[in-house]
Amino acid sequence: KEQTRKTARTVFDFERWEAHRCSGRYFRHILGVFNSRIIFGLLRPLMLVILTATAVVMWESLRQAGVLPPVVPSVQLAWSKELFGLTSFALSLLLVFHTNAGYERWDGARKIWGLMLNRSRDIARQGLTYIPRDQPHLRAMLCRWVPAFSRTLMCHLRQDSDFGAHLKGVLYPHEIEAVLSSTHRPNYVLQVISEIVKSARLPLAARVKMDQNITTFHDDLGGCERILKTPIPLSYTRHTGRFLMIWLLLLPFTLVGGCGVTTIPLCATIGFLLMGIDEIGVAIEEPFSILPLEAIANSALVNIRELEAAHQADPEPDFSAAEDHHTRTALDLVSATATAGTAQRAAAAAATAASAAAVAAAAAAAAAAGAPRSWPSSPAFAN
Amino acid sequence: KEQTRKTARTVFDFERWEAHRCSGRYFRHILGVFNSRIIFGLLRPLMLVILTATAVVMWESLRQAGVLPPVVPSVQLAWSKELFGLTSFALSLLLVFHTNAGYERWDGARKIWGLMLNRSRDIARQGLTYIPRDQPHLRAMLCRWVPAFSRTLMCHLRQDSDFGAHLKGVLYPHEIEAVLSSTHRPNYVLQVISEIVKSARLPLAARVKMDQNITTFHDDLGGCERILKTPIPLSYTRHTGRFLMIWLLLLPFTLVGGCGVTTIPLCATIGFLLMGIDEIGVAIEEPFSILPLEAIANSALVNIRELEAAHQADPEPDFSAAEDHHTRTALDLVSATATAGTAQRAAAAAATAASAAAVAAAAAAAAAAGAPRSWPSSPAFAN
Amino acid sequence: KEQTRKTARTVFDFERWEAHRCSGRYFRHILGVFNSRIIFGLLRPLMLVILTATAVVMWESLRQAGVLPPVVPSVQLAWSKELFGLTSFALSLLLVFHTNAGYERWDGARKIWGLMLNRSRDIARQGLTYIPRDQPHLRAMLCRWVPAFSRTLMCHLRQDSDFGAHLKGVLYPHEIEAVLSSTHRPNYVLQVISEIVKSARLPLAARVKMDQNITTFHDDLGGCERILKTPIPLSYTRHTGRFLMIWLLLLPFTLVGGCGVTTIPLCATIGFLLMGIDEIGVAIEEPFSILPLEAIANSALVNIRELEAAHQADPEPDFSAAEDHHTRTALDLVSATATAGTAQRAAAAAATAASAAAVAAAAAAAAAAGAPRSWPSSPAFAN
Amino acid sequence: KEQTRKTARTVFDFERWEAHRCSGRYFRHILGVFNSRIIFGLLRPLMLVILTATAVVMWESLRQAGVLPPVVPSVQLAWSKELFGLTSFALSLLLVFHTNAGYERWDGARKIWGLMLNRSRDIARQGLTYIPRDQPHLRAMLCRWVPAFSRTLMCHLRQDSDFGAHLKGVLYPHEIEAVLSSTHRPNYVLQVISEIVKSARLPLAARVKMDQNITTFHDDLGGCERILKTPIPLSYTRHTGRFLMIWLLLLPFTLVGGCGVTTIPLCATIGFLLMGIDEIGVAIEEPFSILPLEAIANSALVNIRELEAAHQADPEPDFSAAEDHHTRTALDLVSATATAGTAQRAAAAAATAASAAAVAAAAAAAAAAGAPRSWPSSPAFAN
Amino acid sequence: KEQTRKTARTVFDFERWEAHRCSGRYFRHILGVFNSRIIFGLLRPLMLVILTATAVVMWESLRQAGVLPPVVPSVQLAWSKELFGLTSFALSLLLVFHTNAGYERWDGARKIWGLMLNRSRDIARQGLTYIPRDQPHLRAMLCRWVPAFSRTLMCHLRQDSDFGAHLKGVLYPHEIEAVLSSTHRPNYVLQVISEIVKSARLPLAARVKMDQNITTFHDDLGGCERILKTPIPLSYTRHTGRFLMIWLLLLPFTLVGGCGVTTIPLCATIGFLLMGIDEIGVAIEEPFSILPLEAIANSALVNIRELEAAHQADPEPDFSAAEDHHTRTALDLVSATATAGTAQRAAAAAATAASAAAVAAAAAAAAAAGAPRSWPSSPAFAN
Repeated sequence: KEQTRKTARTVFDFERWEAHRCSGRYFRHILGVFNSRIIFGLLRPLMLVILTATAVVMWESLRQAGVLPPVVPSVQLAWSKELFGLTSFALSLLLVFHTNAGYERWDGARKIWGLMLNRSRDIARQGLTYIPRDQPHLRAMLCRWVPAFSRTLMCHLRQDSDFGAHLKGVLYPHEIEAVLSSTHRPNYVLQVISEIVKSARLPLAARVKMDQNITTFHDDLGGCERILKTPIPLSYTRHTGRFLMIWLLLLPFTLVGGCGVTTIPLCATIGFLLMGIDEIGVAIEEPFSILPLEAIANSALVNIRELEAAHQADPEPDFSAAEDHHTRTALDLVSATATAGTAQRAAAAAATAASAAAVAAAAAAAAAAGAPRSWPSSPAFAN
Repeated sequence: KEQTRKTARTVFDFERWEAHRCSGRYFRHILGVFNSRIIFGLLRPLMLVILTATAVVMWESLRQAGVLPPVVPSVQLAWSKELFGLTSFALSLLLVFHTNAGYERWDGARKIWGLMLNRSRDIARQGLTYIPRDQPHLRAMLCRWVPAFSRTLMCHLRQDSDFGAHLKGVLYPHEIEAVLSSTHRPNYVLQVISEIVKSARLPLAARVKMDQNITTFHDDLGGCERILKTPIPLSYTRHTGRFLMIWLLLLPFTLVGGCGVTTIPLCATIGFLLMGIDEIGVAIEEPFSILPLEAIANSALVNIRELEAAHQADPEPDFSAAEDHHTRTALDLVSATATAGTAQRAAAAAATAASAAAVAAAAAAAAAAGAPRSWPSSPAFAN
Repeated sequence: KEQTRKTARTVFDFERWEAHRCSGRYFRHILGVFNSRIIFGLLRPLMLVILTATAVVMWESLRQAGVLPPVVPSVQLAWSKELFGLTSFALSLLLVFHTNAGYERWDGARKIWGLMLNRSRDIARQGLTYIPRDQPHLRAMLCRWVPAFSRTLMCHLRQDSDFGAHLKGVLYPHEIEAVLSSTHRPNYVLQVISEIVKSARLPLAARVKMDQNITTFHDDLGGCERILKTPIPLSYTRHTGRFLMIWLLLLPFTLVGGCGVTTIPLCATIGFLLMGIDEIGVAIEEPFSILPLEAIANSALVNIRELEAAHQADPEPDFSAAEDHHTRTALDLVSATATAGTAQRAAAAAATAASAAAVAAAAAAAAAAGAPRSWPSSPAFAN
Repeated sequence: KEQTRKTARTVFDFERWEAHRCSGRYFRHILGVFNSRIIFGLLRPLMLVILTATAVVMWESLRQAGVLPPVVPSVQLAWSKELFGLTSFALSLLLVFHTNAGYERWDGARKIWGLMLNRSRDIARQGLTYIPRDQPHLRAMLCRWVPAFSRTLMCHLRQDSDFGAHLKGVLYPHEIEAVLSSTHRPNYVLQVISEIVKSARLPLAARVKMDQNITTFHDDLGGCERILKTPIPLSYTRHTGRFLMIWLLLLPFTLVGGCGVTTIPLCATIGFLLMGIDEIGVAIEEPFSILPLEAIANSALVNIRELEAAHQADPEPDFSAAEDHHTRTALDLVSATATAGTAQRAAAAAATAASAAAVAAAAAAAAAAGAPRSWPSSPAFAN
Repeated sequence: KEQTRKTARTVFDFERWEAHRCSGRYFRHILGVFNSRIIFGLLRPLMLVILTATAVVMWESLRQAGVLPPVVPSVQLAWSKELFGLTSFALSLLLVFHTNAGYERWDGARKIWGLMLNRSRDIARQGLTYIPRDQPHLRAMLCRWVPAFSRTLMCHLRQDSDFGAHLKGVLYPHEIEAVLSSTHRPNYVLQVISEIVKSARLPLAARVKMDQNITTFHDDLGGCERILKTPIPLSYTRHTGRFLMIWLLLLPFTLVGGCGVTTIPLCATIGFLLMGIDEIGVAIEEPFSILPLEAIANSALVNIRELEAAHQADPEPDFSAAEDHHTRTALDLVSATATAGTAQRAAAAAATAASAAAVAAAAAAAAAAGAPRSWPSSPAFAN
């Protein structure tokens, strides 16, 4: 069952949305009901409900057929209708609110990872902008360790993860070793990033801005650990489970009077529908094993490499190749705004337009250069 | 069906609000029920419900008429009333909570786009205030690329968008080509904006403020991608769909005993009402194809062009034309506050009042100048 | 009906709260039921419900009385009780959740305006503190244009507003003209405020702080426009309306069997109670025509004028009049804290205490001076 | 009734929590039902419900006993069961959502006051840290006016408050007079605090940080005024009240058929239970008269005085008394960390440790000195 | 009962999540029902419900058996079914909403503590980065007092805590004494931290950043005190309790007619299920005695010690040992990026890489050094 959780790590694209919205989904849902993870997860308690229903039905049938001695009492309960009505309400509310508390945790975890992706791009952009070009090693280190953080955090939040395999191709082997030998691995990676920023000896304001992003990483890490280590209060989950099981196990005693043998499929159906709500809540309560963290971590890696390639392709703004094209652009700008009048201004404009175009050229170069490096790359979040 | 989603991209004004609040809406809603997108979207599952109901009704009618041999059992279920009561509650809660989770995603997406519009205006305002007038090309570039971001993001979030067509008239052709050849287009545009700010060599504090807005753009982009790539957990959506279909398909077996032939329209009505709730939830779960993103992106373009025109019309504060008017204003101020006593102060006041008035003049000029440029413009968000 | 919305713009004070909490409210509510705006708003659909009920009752009465030929079938539906039970639940949830989504929009709009009031006071306080006293015209302009913003925004958000009338007494006539001739009026006012701050040539940190408040104004403007231009998804509102009308129009067919003539008042009552919930949701969905924006905008005006008067009354701290009193105060302080020992400190203390007291004197002067200026002023938010 | 609201201003401690969690609470709740504020508040509408029920019961009894002429019709309504079922759902949702909207306002008000307490401590801490020791009067003024703000705000939010009595012992008499003669008293206090910070001529960064806290105070003030002046939309409250009263007044017509005389206690019980929910919502909608604002304001006063005393007790760090003790400590540190090797470092360490210890000594001194000053002090929030 | 609350302080890991998700949980829940804290907590009110039910059943049995004189009336109530239906709805909503309000408080408290853990790590990181190495005592003091804050706050929020025992091993004995003798202990610890930061004479920006974290600590402290001192409005809790008890005590009068002797177990079951919901809400309303605060406080201690050890192990970057390895790394970098060309750059790169590697070495050293210091350490949050 734990293995099947991996199949839930879906990333949607336009085609999947279209299929998702298509009214054909109802047919798929119905036909897929016996393949669903939920029904496998619930097999055992469903069996208990079905067995209880079968026992009750057989007892009553045998008694009515006169096989059992008349001294044996009926187990049929007359009062049930009203009472199930009185409590079905509280039960439904408990189930749905529990599931919604789980959904909020899941959504919170997804937002934390989204924020981490944004901030990873942001700190890389800041580093490539603020760290001077004569410190290429610091720039390269930052572009290695920032994506390493999301991979390390992913492994930290999942059982039996092979840290080494996930960091291979992101960090150098001796760096991976250093991470592996630390006690709290994500904290260690953040400490390295902190040292990189410190070593760059940036002006104060730039450093404060980058420091802020590291603080956000700390908050992301803390937020994920909070979700992982603290479940919804167990008394809440337990009481919901107890309420549900007591309710379902008493159900056949009520139904047997009116429904006879159909009590059995009936109890199974109701059990499936209601336990399914509870099961979903429990399944999304610990969200890290069902969220597509690989795709997000990968997106951080791919985006940062593109950025890095764009900046490396532009070591010194080079006007020779782009000259005629961009000078024209600059002149266009000049005539369009009809205010510039000096050659000095045109030169400044040309420089500016060129630096923007250089980014484009570099990005293309990066895309081309991506394959030969042959690092694992999923286009999921980066396309 | 996918095409009809475009019709949902509504922007309200006072007239529409009045019609919206008018109690005549109930008549419109009732009369429009057979034109509604929901009913078209649900045709197939509704057909299944109706066919099942028809089959059940025919079976029972034939059996009662004696056409079927008496050995054929009744499919009528006696227990249904209570059981539908017990589960209708949980079903309704699931449906409405699912729809509300979709509404929150829709609302979140709308707020992200609202924030992007605010920040687009803000970064343009900052750029026009902070970037010195002797760099007109940078100012013009900023006013081109900031509105280009919202257009690029719009296309990025929608299927089969023609990026080129939407960027035409916003950027120059060679710039559009550069955007089109990049791997992650919105990221590329943000990178260009980042380079523009960097090239302006602003004082630190101004740069930090503008950088903050770029970070917000990154967060907006990440937030939109999060909503687009991560649906509500599929197990939740699937279980709701299953619960609903099982419930609706069992319904005729219960109703046929009491209602006879009216079972069929009855099941159709209940099916429409309940499946409609689920359908709305699914329809707004991916909000970008139903939000009026064009209007918002256009509003960014129009507002920024107004700002730009206002600033271009005021290359150097010119007192000659406005002199008598504004000098009077300044004198009014002086006499009103009754504290100023020196000619120096009056001059300063005149300069200040004049610069404010110049904005007004420039805005009017911009409005007049808007048409000849003949760029696509929708007054929806800009009126 | 649209006119009656103005009566909803209530501002509470202690007396109204007491009446609000008093249990006599139930009597008022019941007695006022036929004067309520809701019942007028719902007259037409209620009529439809009542007419349907009457038709159904008459049909059945005539049929039972033998007036109609026996071939005419009964329109009474036997199945109704259970089915109304099954769907009343989903209907109630839809209605209440819709109303709550409207309440959140209303509450959001109120909070935006509250924030705008706080920030208006704050930017005025900053301006009067940071802009040096030798630029009285800039200080006066700021104190004119900041309250003008909330008035302009109010008119912008309401239909058929007379901008000129609302700005009269806040800005000078030629300034009002400039606002009126701009394309996007609130944006224009913000642009003027931005120019005022820019013209003051403040130190960087002060300018950044004031700029932050202008950004907040931009966010407020964008938030209000978002609420005004984007209703709750129309499919949601429409489906709720349809569900409700179908349910109410089918109701008499069920009730007529058991209730006879009382079906008519009964359907009317249920229709009023349930449609009332929907009507409230629709009424508060567009909150600007029912929120007391005048009172809030006025409060901004009155508070800022008080501040301005307080600062104008204190051109140079004047010790002569207050000397004996404040010197005593300063000495009190000195002896109380038992640490000061030099005349220099006592002088500093006297200066400090005096500046605080000057504020008090100025505020009193402002209160006295408020009337002669004879500008419109409502004490609602300022008392 | 208004007076009894004061008894709701509870502050919990460990003993009260233990009693709160103890299962004996159910017995207390049941036994206290006739002393509850709710039942007194609801006496009049409950009487109406009971009178209606009694009239209905008597009418039916007399008719059945043959006292009334047979021409008198029965007022008993047969249809009631289903219809009350159909609407009880919407009614319950309305009641509980209304109460929850009230709870959110109450919670929001409590959080605003909690924030104000935190910020009061924070601005005092900043002032005592940043304002140099040679300006003792400014430090003392800040420590007087910051706690005065929370007291002034408390009085501002409550009816018939005696500002003078609450400020006595916090400010000097002539300061109280100045506050009393201002038009908007909390605004005046904030203005004074603003002037104190301005007069201290702090370095820019410190001033900006303190200014931020003043902005937070403005937001707190605005938030409280928003809650006080804007109730939940009256149409919502009114419709809930009407729905409830119509429902309760129709109830006896239904019940009288099945329950006879027990209709009367029955209607009273249901009326009490349901109106109680509405009453709670209305009671907490205006939270300032039931929140323990005195305790919070007092806590601000006590905490700031402690801080002040701690700083005054430490005019110049004095090493003589603490020498042997702290030198040992410093040496401990040195040997423990095994890195320090020079006397210079030991001296620095001693200085540091001493300054911390001086705080302890000062706090003790303050505690001792607290009593003789004999200002009103409640230990509620300060223990 | 109060003692059993300690058992609820659970910290989850992967194994517990697997067991939590396993469908076997239903069996555990059912089998553990009689060991549950809830059932013990509810024993007394459950007894009351059972006794009432028994009395009612006996009364009716005796009356029917003819033991009681025929004059004795039946206590059976005929009307109950409908009325319990009408109110079960409002009761369920009240119970579940009350429990959810409690859950929000619990969740808020957990988030506050999570934030405190993040900020504790952050301020320690800042301190170790910003405070120069020639002030080792300040660095050591900070690393002692920051974890002391979370321990002190934990004791402050729990009854009968032995502050001394919890601070032993974190602070030196004379420091513990100073904390113990202060009036508001967490405030005192924050004051000491504030003095440490002040004594370090850091550059302004670093000081402002650290000051921000202290402000966050103040907000955390204030937030915890708010939750501890302000329960959910008592009228809400009381009315829920009253509603529930009245409902449960009237239940047997209704059921006895249809169910006879089974009324007794039935009332007990319903009582357990519904009172259990209320009990959970009350149990999590005061969250500090059931949250695993020790584990979080310990995690702060362990993480900060690791950081400190890492930095102490690296007094001066030492290149001798790591030379060959890291120089290679740096050269790898150089060749990989293919841009560096001077020896100067390689040296800078080596320095940078080395400082990162030194952190790794230091962390390992810290792990090894952790045991001999023999301070209490739980690996719960630090693994």
